[in-house]
Amino acid sequence: MPASTLPFTMVEYERRLTKVRAAMQEWEVDVLFVEDPSNMAWLTGYDGWSFYVHQGVLVFLDEDPIWWGRLQDANGAIRTCWMDDDRASGYADYFVQAKDCHPMEDLAAILTRKGYANKRIGVELDNYYFSAKAFLTLQKELPNANFVDATALVNWQRGVKSDEEILFMRRAARISEKIIDGILERIEPGVKKHELVAEIYADAVRGVDDSWGDYPAIVPLLPSGSDAAAPHLTWSWTSFEKGEATFFEISGCYRRYHAPFCRTVFLGKPPQHLVDAEKALVDGLHAGLDAARPGNCAGDVSRALHAELAKGGIERSARCGYPIGISYPPDWGERTISFRDNDNTELQAGMTFHFMPGLWMKDWGMEITESILVREGAAAECLCNRPRKMFVKD
Amino acid sequence: MPASTLPFTMVEYERRLTKVRAAMQEWEVDVLFVEDPSNMAWLTGYDGWSFYVHQGVLVFLDEDPIWWGRLQDANGAIRTCWMDDDRASGYADYFVQAKDCHPMEDLAAILTRKGYANKRIGVELDNYYFSAKAFLTLQKELPNANFVDATALVNWQRGVKSDEEILFMRRAARISEKIIDGILERIEPGVKKHELVAEIYADAVRGVDDSWGDYPAIVPLLPSGSDAAAPHLTWSWTSFEKGEATFFEISGCYRRYHAPFCRTVFLGKPPQHLVDAEKALVDGLHAGLDAARPGNCAGDVSRALHAELAKGGIERSARCGYPIGISYPPDWGERTISFRDNDNTELQAGMTFHFMPGLWMKDWGMEITESILVREGAAAECLCNRPRKMFVKD
Repeated sequence: MPASTLPFTMVEYERRLTKVRAAMQEWEVDVLFVEDPSNMAWLTGYDGWSFYVHQGVLVFLDEDPIWWGRLQDANGAIRTCWMDDDRASGYADYFVQAKDCHPMEDLAAILTRKGYANKRIGVELDNYYFSAKAFLTLQKELPNANFVDATALVNWQRGVKSDEEILFMRRAARISEKIIDGILERIEPGVKKHELVAEIYADAVRGVDDSWGDYPAIVPLLPSGSDAAAPHLTWSWTSFEKGEATFFEISGCYRRYHAPFCRTVFLGKPPQHLVDAEKALVDGLHAGLDAARPGNCAGDVSRALHAELAKGGIERSARCGYPIGISYPPDWGERTISFRDNDNTELQAGMTFHFMPGLWMKDWGMEITESILVREGAAAECLCNRPRKMFVKD
Repeated sequence: MPASTLPFTMVEYERRLTKVRAAMQEWEVDVLFVEDPSNMAWLTGYDGWSFYVHQGVLVFLDEDPIWWGRLQDANGAIRTCWMDDDRASGYADYFVQAKDCHPMEDLAAILTRKGYANKRIGVELDNYYFSAKAFLTLQKELPNANFVDATALVNWQRGVKSDEEILFMRRAARISEKIIDGILERIEPGVKKHELVAEIYADAVRGVDDSWGDYPAIVPLLPSGSDAAAPHLTWSWTSFEKGEATFFEISGCYRRYHAPFCRTVFLGKPPQHLVDAEKALVDGLHAGLDAARPGNCAGDVSRALHAELAKGGIERSARCGYPIGISYPPDWGERTISFRDNDNTELQAGMTFHFMPGLWMKDWGMEITESILVREGAAAECLCNRPRKMFVKD
C-alpha cells in the first residue's frame, strides 16, 4: 500500500522487524510463523477482521515478510501491509473450515518451496488462533522440521513503545476519558444498561477531534452490585439501581492501540465497606505508580499495591496489571509481563501497562485503574487524566 | 443461577446435553472438553468476556457438566450457568499467561481425580482458544489418556435450531433490519465512516422494543469502491464518496444469537457492470433460496447460485454460506457445513444459515445476503425482511 496511508513510518516498521530478527537469532529460529493478529499488524500493518480463519505472517532473516491467508483476504493484505503486493500469498477457499484438508498444508508447501522443510521453524504454540490442529498438521507435513516454541517472541519485542506508538496511545486515552465522562453524565437509577452501552459505543467510535475510534479488543464491561464480584460479565437489559456500585471497564482504541480505563460509580450513598475499599485501593494505586520505575521489577508494583490493600484488610490473589498497546480481540493485553509478586521482569522506560488491581470479592466488586507509561526519574505517568476515585452520584 | 433468568428453559438445556452425550457415544468419547465459548454457552448458559484465558466445560456421560476457568471468573459461571454452584471450578491466578506453568495442568488434575486419566478424552483440536500448547500440556500431564479429535462435535449438534433459538434469531433479525435502515437513512457523500459506525453500534445495542442488543461476534464491515474487493476491512476516518459502492456486513445480536445481513449502497448513478452484477446476484440468491430445502444438500444451494451468476459472467470460488446461531468473537458462523459445491451435507428443517455469496472481484465488491431458515415444503425463509437489491442513493 502507499506508505502515506500506513499508520506508521517505514522507519518504525524497520525498527520492529530488526528487533524481531534479532530475537529470532537469539531464540535460534530460522523462520518464524506469526498467527497472532496483533503481532501480524505490528510487524506488517495488516488490518482486517479475518482472524477467524487461519492466517499469519512468515518472518525471514533475509527477505521481507510474507502475509499468508485466505485468498479473498489477500486483497486486504495488499491494501494494508507495507510489503510489495507479491508478498501476499492466498490459499484456496476450499481449505476454509473443511473437514478433509487444512490450510496449514498450504503453508507447509510454501515453507518447503522456500527451503525451510528441515529448518528451525518458530511457531506461537500458546496463542489464540494457532490451534492444536494447525500445529499437528504442520508437524505431519514437515516431518523433518524442528519446531521451536516461539510463543510471545514478537510480543516481547512490543513491550517498549516508540514515540509513534505512544502518540497513538495518548489518542486512545482521550477517547477513554470521553467514554468515562459520558458514563458519569448519563448513569442514573432506572437507566437500562444496554441504553448506556449504546452511548458508550457511539462515544468510543466517534472519538475525539481527529482521533477517530477503532473497535476495542474487549467489549464494555459494567457489572453492578453483587454481580460486580464477577469481572467479565457483559451487559443486559437490566437497569442501574440506587444503592449499587457499578464498575466500568472500557478502553478507547485509536488504530488498534488501547488505553484501558476503569472507574466505579455508586448511585446513592455508598456503604462504609466500599468507602474503605476505595481508600485502600487509591492508596495502593498511588504506591504502585511510584514503584513503576525503570530498574524496578513488575513484582515491585504488585507488592507496593498489596501492602496498601493489606492496611485496608483486603487480600487479593490475581495479578494487578499487564502490558498494553496494539491489540485485536479477545484481549487488549500483550501476554508477556504480569504485575504479580513473583514476576521479576525489569521495567524499562517506554513500557506501557494497564495497572489493573480490580477487587472482585464474594459479593461486591470495584475497579479503579490506570493505563500507565513507565518513564525515567519519576513515578509512572497516567495516560488518562480523570479523578482517581469511586464516583458517587446521589 | 435462578432458572428464571437463564436465556432458555431447562428443557432446552437438557435437549442439548442429551444430543451431545449421544454424539460423544457415537464418537467414542468418555469425557469431552469444550473450550469454544459458543459451545460453552450453548451447553451451560455461561456468558462472559473471559475467553482470552483458558477455560472450558467438561461434559460427562453420567453427571452434570463442570465449568472450568480462571478463579475470578467462577463468580461469573455461578451467575450464568444452570448447573449447581459447586460445578464451577476455578484455577489459581498464577496460571494466567505464566511462563513456567499452564492452566491445563489444573484441568489434567481434575480429569485424573475423576478417573479419566486413562480414558478417551475428546478435545476440540481445531477451535479458537484451544491452543497447541494447551493440547501438548494435556498430553504431557495425561500420558495414558487417549485423546480424540472432537473438533465441532458440539457445533454439529447446534445445527438444527429449537423454536426457542429461532425466536432469538428473529429478534436479532429485527435488530439487523434496524441497523440497515439506519445506514440507508444516514449515508451521504462526505459522511465519515467512523461517524456512521458510531450510529450502527448505537442502533445495534439499543435494539428494537424489548429485544436489546448484545455485541455481535464480528464488527461492522463497510469497505467502499475498490476497497470492497477486500471482504474484511474495517472502518477508518475516510468519507463516503459519490460514485462509489459500499457494502455493509452487519448483524443484530440478541443474547448471543445472530442474524447477519448485508446490503450494498451506491451513492450516485451506478455503472452498468454493478447493475449487471446486482441482477445476477439477486437471481442467484433467489435460486439458492429455492434450493435450500430439506433433503437437498449444501452443494445444491451453491450450484443453484453459481448457475445464475454464470449467466451474468461472474465466477466465484469462495463458499457462499455457513450455519449461524449462537456465537462469540471472532466468528458468527458455526464452522460445520459450508455452502460449496462439494459439500454433500443434507439440509434439514430448522437449520439456519447466512447465505452469503459476497462478490469480491479485482477492484470492486458487492454483498447482498440473507439469513435463512430451512423449512418443510417451501423455499427457505429469510429472517430479515428488506428489499433484496443494491440500494442507490442519488
